[in-house]
Amino acid sequence: MANMEAQKIELVKSLLRRLHEEANVEELKREFKQVLSTVQPWEIPLIEQQLVKEGVPISEILKLCDLHVDLFREYLAGRELRGVPEGHPLDLLLKENELLLKLSEQLSVVAGALQSARNEELKPLFEQMKALLRSLRGIRTHYRKVQMLIFPYLERRGIVAIPRVLWGREDGVIVKLRALLKGVEGELPPSEVRLMAEEALKLAREVSELVFRENKILYPAVFALFSEGEWAAIAEEAEKIGYLVKPERKWEPRAEPLLPHQVDPQISGEAVEKLPPEFRETALLRLEPDAYQLKREGDLDLGTGFLTLGEVKGIFEALPVEVTFADASDRVRFYSDGRLPSVFVRTRTILGRRLLFCHPPRLERLVNETVEALKRGEANYREFWTRIGDRVVRVFISAVRDEEGNYLGAVEVVEDFTEALKNPEEVLKKVVVL
Amino acid sequence: MANMEAQKIELVKSLLRRLHEEANVEELKREFKQVLSTVQPWEIPLIEQQLVKEGVPISEILKLCDLHVDLFREYLAGRELRGVPEGHPLDLLLKENELLLKLSEQLSVVAGALQSARNEELKPLFEQMKALLRSLRGIRTHYRKVQMLIFPYLERRGIVAIPRVLWGREDGVIVKLRALLKGVEGELPPSEVRLMAEEALKLAREVSELVFRENKILYPAVFALFSEGEWAAIAEEAEKIGYLVKPERKWEPRAEPLLPHQVDPQISGEAVEKLPPEFRETALLRLEPDAYQLKREGDLDLGTGFLTLGEVKGIFEALPVEVTFADASDRVRFYSDGRLPSVFVRTRTILGRRLLFCHPPRLERLVNETVEALKRGEANYREFWTRIGDRVVRVFISAVRDEEGNYLGAVEVVEDFTEALKNPEEVLKKVVVL
Repeated sequence: MANMEAQKIELVKSLLRRLHEEANVEELKREFKQVLSTVQPWEIPLIEQQLVKEGVPISEILKLCDLHVDLFREYLAGRELRGVPEGHPLDLLLKENELLLKLSEQLSVVAGALQSARNEELKPLFEQMKALLRSLRGIRTHYRKVQMLIFPYLERRGIVAIPRVLWGREDGVIVKLRALLKGVEGELPPSEVRLMAEEALKLAREVSELVFRENKILYPAVFALFSEGEWAAIAEEAEKIGYLVKPERKWEPRAEPLLPHQVDPQISGEAVEKLPPEFRETALLRLEPDAYQLKREGDLDLGTGFLTLGEVKGIFEALPVEVTFADASDRVRFYSDGRLPSVFVRTRTILGRRLLFCHPPRLERLVNETVEALKRGEANYREFWTRIGDRVVRVFISAVRDEEGNYLGAVEVVEDFTEALKNPEEVLKKVVVL
Repeated sequence: MANMEAQKIELVKSLLRRLHEEANVEELKREFKQVLSTVQPWEIPLIEQQLVKEGVPISEILKLCDLHVDLFREYLAGRELRGVPEGHPLDLLLKENELLLKLSEQLSVVAGALQSARNEELKPLFEQMKALLRSLRGIRTHYRKVQMLIFPYLERRGIVAIPRVLWGREDGVIVKLRALLKGVEGELPPSEVRLMAEEALKLAREVSELVFRENKILYPAVFALFSEGEWAAIAEEAEKIGYLVKPERKWEPRAEPLLPHQVDPQISGEAVEKLPPEFRETALLRLEPDAYQLKREGDLDLGTGFLTLGEVKGIFEALPVEVTFADASDRVRFYSDGRLPSVFVRTRTILGRRLLFCHPPRLERLVNETVEALKRGEANYREFWTRIGDRVVRVFISAVRDEEGNYLGAVEVVEDFTEALKNPEEVLKKVVVL
């Protein structure tokens, strides 16, 4: 190890000692801020590895991960992101990244220790590594927001390569994490434990690299590009996915939400100016702004999209379930004429028929009780399993309500479950990783 | 047995002898038509039972079943039904009833023989009975047409009690047949075999009673009541259910199909005159014509029913599956925002997005291949099974096409199959008879 690095190690070690002795972390931070100015954030994990080798207790080093992220917050987020309001989607994504960075550093410390530990020391470290891997599972929630909320706005502007490359790397992290979580199950011999630790080290490195890439390149770029309305839509839709951190306050946008398909795909010169150079070069190389018009003449607005009447009909026919709908007055109003072999044949002569009259008298009470429970709001659905010939079938009766929760009717969804129930082993054999 | 009946038995026995000797059945029919005029159709099964007891071979008596139905065709169908055109739905229902009557008579003969047979004679008779019960399964197809095609037109006119009572009896036949088919499985001790035979006799009696009831009361009534347009609709819809007999020629109605909800529910005096007395009395006792208007202002016409836009939205939300649709240009146009916990979160930011960009680069080839296969018409759907966390999920990608078969897009239907696949035993325990 070079002299320069040896010096840094000594600096960090003294920091750790002080951290151990002093209660006042804030005081400590101020004091060491200047000292640490010679250390680059990406050097920290290397220094931590070195400390492990020198026998500094793991528990001490893990404390350092927190301090490191605290101290380098400004560097990590980048000056370009000054002015991100609290609770803004980018603010929360940055905070998620702080968490992910801490987790990946801790994983790196523990996995590094595992590699050099003696056989009898493996067990507690291995358990610690497993726990950290499990905590990292939440990363999917972080990436999903980037992939589903941020990328579509870039694609709209014709910036398609960067999202694809980033998603590829994020996907690599997920695939590696999934493999590791599976790999560490059960009791493993020491050689396997060390192999897993090696993989975990690679994973930790990739996670923190992606944190830097997002914080230093992606986020500054989208902060420059996206309008307040776009962030308003992102904030709204992000609620369905959720955050790994608890927002302290709700951000109140001053613009109406704007979805990608509503965005003018042209990028202004002013925005280009503000782009981080790494982003600008790649993104503007081959720009193909996307002028796709989602809403067409005569489209039906379904709240979560637009469909023509022909598409609605076609979708019902294409479903692997049979749908029959009776309205609030218990009259059959619609059934789907699916392409798959039908379980219960339905004919157009039942349109307008009383729901009760579509069943034998023996089932009248059951039908009545089910519909009444849905009407009273006691349940959103009732599920029945039955046999039709040699088929095992699920009959799912589900309440249809409007946006205010008023009862509009009941839909019966019939589905053939024979294969899954009679040959579950065969079906499970078909499971693939998607 | 009374003298009168003994005489009839002798008559039938001589008929049987002749049937055995002579090749010309037509000649025989003419000759015996007059002789048999003293025998009522419902006496035949009793006479047949008596012949079994007297030791006439079963195979001989079974021939009689066919002859009986042939000879009494006119009586069975009733004079009121003269003029039913060939291939007309009623013509085919009548022919189905001839078949069902023959089957029930044969069942009655075999089950009667079983009851009085010695233990060592049971086996072949029992096998014969099982085969007959299996042939009778088709009766469901007959009843379904009556229940789904005929009854709705009666209900529309306010005649609701008769369909309910008839369906109750038809349902009784189905339930009994189902129990018998289950009961006769495997090897049974003689006492059980005889019990089954007793049940089969009851079933046979009920089937033939329903044949008479339909032929003598229901069919003449609906023939008097329904217009040519109604029969045209019934003929059209019956094709989905199918017939037990092969129509020799297609009936060509001279009117446009008229569905129940399009029918004027008032019964004309002229039609009332033509109703069989048994039907008239019950039907007209408390008539509540049904003026339900199926099509409402602003309804969407889906071909198999009408829905408001709100109902379409509500139905998608109520489904136990997640639906996402991309159009023919591979753009996401719609996704359903279901009530159940989501498998794949979808947000409004993906509306208008390229389908390919909704997946990690790793899956691009798979997505492309799937969509191309659907576009080329090589497949109507592709099915994938995968794991999401601890859930096992089916991803069903199905082609959406218009009436001419043109590709409109692809719908992805995602469904959680975990319960069925991981605890099939638990699910199968919930199976009930519906």
